[in-house]
Amino acid sequence: MRTLFYYNWQIRDEWFQVLEQVPAIDLLRDRHAGVGSILKTIFHIIDVEYSWIRVVKNESDITFQFEDYNDLKSLRNLSEKIRSEIKEFIDNWSNDMECEAVIPSWMDKTFNKGEILRHILVHEIHHIGQLSIWSKELGIKVVSSNFIGRELLERH
Amino acid sequence: MRTLFYYNWQIRDEWFQVLEQVPAIDLLRDRHAGVGSILKTIFHIIDVEYSWIRVVKNESDITFQFEDYNDLKSLRNLSEKIRSEIKEFIDNWSNDMECEAVIPSWMDKTFNKGEILRHILVHEIHHIGQLSIWSKELGIKVVSSNFIGRELLERH
Repeated sequence: MRTLFYYNWQIRDEWFQVLEQVPAIDLLRDRHAGVGSILKTIFHIIDVEYSWIRVVKNESDITFQFEDYNDLKSLRNLSEKIRSEIKEFIDNWSNDMECEAVIPSWMDKTFNKGEILRHILVHEIHHIGQLSIWSKELGIKVVSSNFIGRELLERH
Repeated sequence: MRTLFYYNWQIRDEWFQVLEQVPAIDLLRDRHAGVGSILKTIFHIIDVEYSWIRVVKNESDITFQFEDYNDLKSLRNLSEKIRSEIKEFIDNWSNDMECEAVIPSWMDKTFNKGEILRHILVHEIHHIGQLSIWSKELGIKVVSSNFIGRELLERH
């Protein structure tokens, strides 16, 4: 499971790089699908990941406001700032935590920690798939979503 | 890892159901992104999954032609037909197979079986994310990509 977090982060960073060449107006344009714009999609990925990670860490939720991160640089800084905290948790994840039950503050429902980690993983891959459609409209290079060829299993 | 295969299959089947209400012409329309049309995307998911599964099973590749499966019913039948074979393999997957090396017939490169299984998983989630964008254009319900709430870990 750890490897898929590294996969997501590597791809997210490649998107940050590719999107640097896109004018802010195109990054902010409402595309009437998904969560709206390209920047809102990336914000949503980061926000959702962090909220759920706080849940599995048994810590209270910290919410971010899109208005505070509505440009590529701020989003990238936010992503990098919280990644070290998330990475530390993921690197120390052990399978005996899989079935520990938690209740997120915003839902009246119990989940297993293993279930939540998988939810975070598929959530990002799903939304990155949406970016790949929009990138065609922008005429920019699509970041490869291939898992193979990234040598992720060898490294971590 | 097994659970994420079940996640993908559950969502694929929900898409088959939702897409039943969409006229064939809309399913076949080239959307100038991803691999083209909605049907081509689903065909691509099934085709890629099966080709890589054959690789990890040390079996020769079987290729499908889109022209033979260019309607929803044929694709659904193909998906169901090969699923029992794939499911049997996935259900009997063990972690000691992770590092077994294989070379696909269409590439001059060695991969580990664990790497390939992850590749299959993220490949489908990525392309399903693309469908979610196009479903808005069609005005149909988007299939939820949530992992939580599907009770997948309890069942398998």
